[in-house]
Amino acid sequence: MGHTVTFFPGSITAEVRDGETVLDAAIAAGVPVNSVCGGKGTCGKCLVIVDGPSESAPGVLSADELALGYRLACQTVVRGDMTVFIPEEAQVSEHQILASYRGREAPNLTPLTEVRKLDLAAPSLEDNLADLERVACALGDPQLIIPLPLLRSLPAILRESGWKLSIMLSRPDGVERVLTIEKGSKDIPNYGMAVDIGTTTVVAELVDLNTGRTVAQASDYNHQLVCGEDVLSRISYAEEKGGKRLTELVVDTVNGLIAQLCAERDRKRRFHPGTCDEDIASIVVSGNTTMIHTLLGLDLRNIRYEPYIPVANVPPVLTASELGLRAQPDAPVLCVPGRAAYVGGDITSDILLSGMHLRDELALLIDVGTNGEVVLGNKDWIIGCSTSAGPAFEGGEVACGMRAMTGAIDKVSISEREISVSTIGNAKPRGICGSGLIDLIAQMFSAGYLDKKGRIDTASSERVRSSGRGMEFVVHPGGSRAIAVSDDDIASVIRTKAAIYAGCAVLLQTVDKRFTDLDRVYIAGGFGSYIDIENAQTIGLLPDLPRERFELLGNASLGGAKLCLMSEAMRREARDIYSMMTYLDLSSSPAFFDQYSSALFLPHTDMEQFPTVRGRLAGRKAPGA
Amino acid sequence: MGHTVTFFPGSITAEVRDGETVLDAAIAAGVPVNSVCGGKGTCGKCLVIVDGPSESAPGVLSADELALGYRLACQTVVRGDMTVFIPEEAQVSEHQILASYRGREAPNLTPLTEVRKLDLAAPSLEDNLADLERVACALGDPQLIIPLPLLRSLPAILRESGWKLSIMLSRPDGVERVLTIEKGSKDIPNYGMAVDIGTTTVVAELVDLNTGRTVAQASDYNHQLVCGEDVLSRISYAEEKGGKRLTELVVDTVNGLIAQLCAERDRKRRFHPGTCDEDIASIVVSGNTTMIHTLLGLDLRNIRYEPYIPVANVPPVLTASELGLRAQPDAPVLCVPGRAAYVGGDITSDILLSGMHLRDELALLIDVGTNGEVVLGNKDWIIGCSTSAGPAFEGGEVACGMRAMTGAIDKVSISEREISVSTIGNAKPRGICGSGLIDLIAQMFSAGYLDKKGRIDTASSERVRSSGRGMEFVVHPGGSRAIAVSDDDIASVIRTKAAIYAGCAVLLQTVDKRFTDLDRVYIAGGFGSYIDIENAQTIGLLPDLPRERFELLGNASLGGAKLCLMSEAMRREARDIYSMMTYLDLSSSPAFFDQYSSALFLPHTDMEQFPTVRGRLAGRKAPGA
Repeated sequence: MGHTVTFFPGSITAEVRDGETVLDAAIAAGVPVNSVCGGKGTCGKCLVIVDGPSESAPGVLSADELALGYRLACQTVVRGDMTVFIPEEAQVSEHQILASYRGREAPNLTPLTEVRKLDLAAPSLEDNLADLERVACALGDPQLIIPLPLLRSLPAILRESGWKLSIMLSRPDGVERVLTIEKGSKDIPNYGMAVDIGTTTVVAELVDLNTGRTVAQASDYNHQLVCGEDVLSRISYAEEKGGKRLTELVVDTVNGLIAQLCAERDRKRRFHPGTCDEDIASIVVSGNTTMIHTLLGLDLRNIRYEPYIPVANVPPVLTASELGLRAQPDAPVLCVPGRAAYVGGDITSDILLSGMHLRDELALLIDVGTNGEVVLGNKDWIIGCSTSAGPAFEGGEVACGMRAMTGAIDKVSISEREISVSTIGNAKPRGICGSGLIDLIAQMFSAGYLDKKGRIDTASSERVRSSGRGMEFVVHPGGSRAIAVSDDDIASVIRTKAAIYAGCAVLLQTVDKRFTDLDRVYIAGGFGSYIDIENAQTIGLLPDLPRERFELLGNASLGGAKLCLMSEAMRREARDIYSMMTYLDLSSSPAFFDQYSSALFLPHTDMEQFPTVRGRLAGRKAPGA
Repeated sequence: MGHTVTFFPGSITAEVRDGETVLDAAIAAGVPVNSVCGGKGTCGKCLVIVDGPSESAPGVLSADELALGYRLACQTVVRGDMTVFIPEEAQVSEHQILASYRGREAPNLTPLTEVRKLDLAAPSLEDNLADLERVACALGDPQLIIPLPLLRSLPAILRESGWKLSIMLSRPDGVERVLTIEKGSKDIPNYGMAVDIGTTTVVAELVDLNTGRTVAQASDYNHQLVCGEDVLSRISYAEEKGGKRLTELVVDTVNGLIAQLCAERDRKRRFHPGTCDEDIASIVVSGNTTMIHTLLGLDLRNIRYEPYIPVANVPPVLTASELGLRAQPDAPVLCVPGRAAYVGGDITSDILLSGMHLRDELALLIDVGTNGEVVLGNKDWIIGCSTSAGPAFEGGEVACGMRAMTGAIDKVSISEREISVSTIGNAKPRGICGSGLIDLIAQMFSAGYLDKKGRIDTASSERVRSSGRGMEFVVHPGGSRAIAVSDDDIASVIRTKAAIYAGCAVLLQTVDKRFTDLDRVYIAGGFGSYIDIENAQTIGLLPDLPRERFELLGNASLGGAKLCLMSEAMRREARDIYSMMTYLDLSSSPAFFDQYSSALFLPHTDMEQFPTVRGRLAGRKAPGA
């Protein structure tokens, strides 16, 4: 028996079977609903207000929330035609997706697809090369690969054009393949797309590969968010319901970006709309291993369980049509190679953009996206690990946590017991995003509201109050629900920062180095760009080193993908990085556990590692003491 | 208005439009009718007896033949439903197709498709290669290409098989591509087919690539024969009616051979019939440039007109499904590279089998198939040309000429004015094939029936008589038509042999060498194998060198294709031969014209070049003088 579920705002409907959940209906309808835990009822993010025949379990909702009519979409079973309202806090709304990056530039323009203009000598009895070899010879590539239909059309094109022609070549691995041939020596439109597929956000850049210039950027949330917010939730979803829907959702996300990019380009260049899809001749994708697996429709199961083995770290170069991407059907799709199940191609891109793999200096790279990956190395060796940092910085595991979108508190400062906050889009505060949480905890700690273990000092401020979840600190009175952090919330953040710091410490320990030996610390990832480094040092997330040693790369995954799109040398370097990187699995490492335990304090048990923070704290606390 | 034409024997029907010819109907029906000139009415081979509404021009038929009811299929227009009888002489019947060859053997078994059996270590936290890279690493090829569907199935296959698997790889250009993956470490059936596509005959060999052993051979006439007997007729046909039918006919011929090969294999190995198609995992094709172009559906036009430019001499490696061949759909199809419009991949195969491109000694290679190609060289250089020898040795341009099939006179000797002949299959003589013509003319010349210009001495024998076509020599009284050669017929043979000899002479002249400098003379091609070398020297077709310097390669085109099927080194050598060969166009060469003119005698104007023949003639003629 089927029921119709209608979602508001938007009035989008889905048909579901009796007994399916409202979250299932939202996934089927493609309605983006916040969901961190992937339908387990534990994160409390998929808040909805329902009207119609249904049965709900309360999940983590309080009696107050239930009384206000809130239900969890994942815990609500559809029993008849019904309507569902998605309140603002559960909607995926205007966001702050980082598309900018800075780092190395491509040394030359040798793009993944390239237009070559040929003006050939007509053959003669003395110069009797065959048509194909004449073209191959002019291109300087005797191994040229040409599809049969194009080979069949070649003689007529050559002769009708007076031996002038333009050829689009794809060359993913040095082997050149003909994509299109046109009469006359001219610029064939040749656009390439670099795309960073993050667990949370997807960002794409359209590059005119004839000139190397970026013509448009676009971003969106990964539509897979309805299947869970972190990679483990996605894998669980695939295990329970199959991976096909995940693949559809990510392909749909990327195709949406292609449409955005094309609209933007057409607007700028006054092109006739509707021709762009066919002009995208090559695509480079950067993403973590789980994202690449879902894009390619590869089995996710073995990523989840020890020994955490991907199907492929270096996927073959595929075509847009094989993946259902709306570009030229034969457009090559290159995935930046990853190194392991939890150190993916996004990290390779980070390294590539930083150039740390080419220098003598010892560098640490931290990618604080939805996962926390850490890499240490120089031109001779690279070692990397994943810290399973948890989603605290991305809005998970913190009651009032949210992603960096409109209304998120992104900066906090406390002085003289006054608290001031700024929000993204200057909107009414709705929650706190990662950079805001770091600021808040660092400032609360500096102000003496928190002890070294991160516990709220009950008497420290009138903003401290008791709640159903223990003590909490009210950051902002808010609307129906105040924006506050509890002891539990702070503990979550501390666990996350401790995992990242411990990961760095173990890598250094492995090669017998110390934090002070680091010449450079690169911060990559959407969230990293907005971090206040001093506050991050105060809570012990980042090492206590001079500010000038830190370099913010921004969305380095996108930047690295673009490098690979534009330069053969960069594609080779990306493979070299894959080959030279050693992966360290921390999941069963006693050294990691030791380091992690030592880091579960503000900033750390070993204050010798944070001399500047210690000095700052001594200076600040004095007046309030 | 359509008419039905029914052909006998066989009772095969075709529908044609009013005004089309009986030859058109035969082509449409796929009925093999002899046709040398491709429908011009000049060769007189497409004899038929018709019954029903039709209009015929006599063409080259005599009043006697017309009176006997013979018509030319190409000159008979269909005007209503009719029946057509194809008499024996116009049928393509039991044939003597050369499938054997001798020459080099593959140095090792590195076939175009190869089965690799892997017993992999299961991954662990320490050995965490991804599935694809684990396989690629075990295969020793980091650049392994794998189709997406196979990549998707890889993790389950690996884990369900306990990390034991068998992989079929194709490696046309050193790049390895996965064709199939099966669970368990076992022999996947891996058959390869080498095929020589000649203008007249097509020969194929099925090789078990797991062992390198030949399991079956098969041959057939090229079904394109209904569109004309030589390459120029085929090209004309394509120009007038499009090349599609030629492609269909040659594909049909090859698919017929595949069926034959599979039936033979199943009979020998007691396989369940019907599974073979899918077991053919790779194909190597050797053929002249026109044949390869028709197989691939490439435009033939530019091969015909100066400067004679093929679409491709080194076609890309394609798949069986792209070409409509009944093998594994993804089976690679490699065409042995050719050098020019009239020196094709068959000649490259000849050279490869001979090994002349590897030795210090100066060697000449003559391929006397439907065309006459000549190659001169050693390990440092190779120079080749085509002599447009004409079809005299293949049954064309000679009234009683026929291909080497049942009933063809293939050997002639004349002693004491007695003539003795042998026929293929010991059947009733129906005509004379190439080797028979050489014997006949040499023996007639030795016996004094012919002068140096090849003219029949009217008084030399009671077998000499006057005919509608001048004087003729009756070889055999025959049935309705006597088997006889006329002055014109002999002149045709002399033109053909002169062209071949002149081609050899020009190549030698180009590098400032003489025939006596030759260390080795290779004879390749179906017809070459049956030549009596002494008689061929007597007429001046082959140079006057000691017998031990001649080496008969047999069907070297097939032999070379098989070498490429079996060995990567041989595939590389074939490309090297393509690269090192210089092509000499004789069509506008004054040197060729001079040499040709000097060779239009028996054996030659310059008798200094034929000292042994001169001695033999002096010895023989003495008694009869």
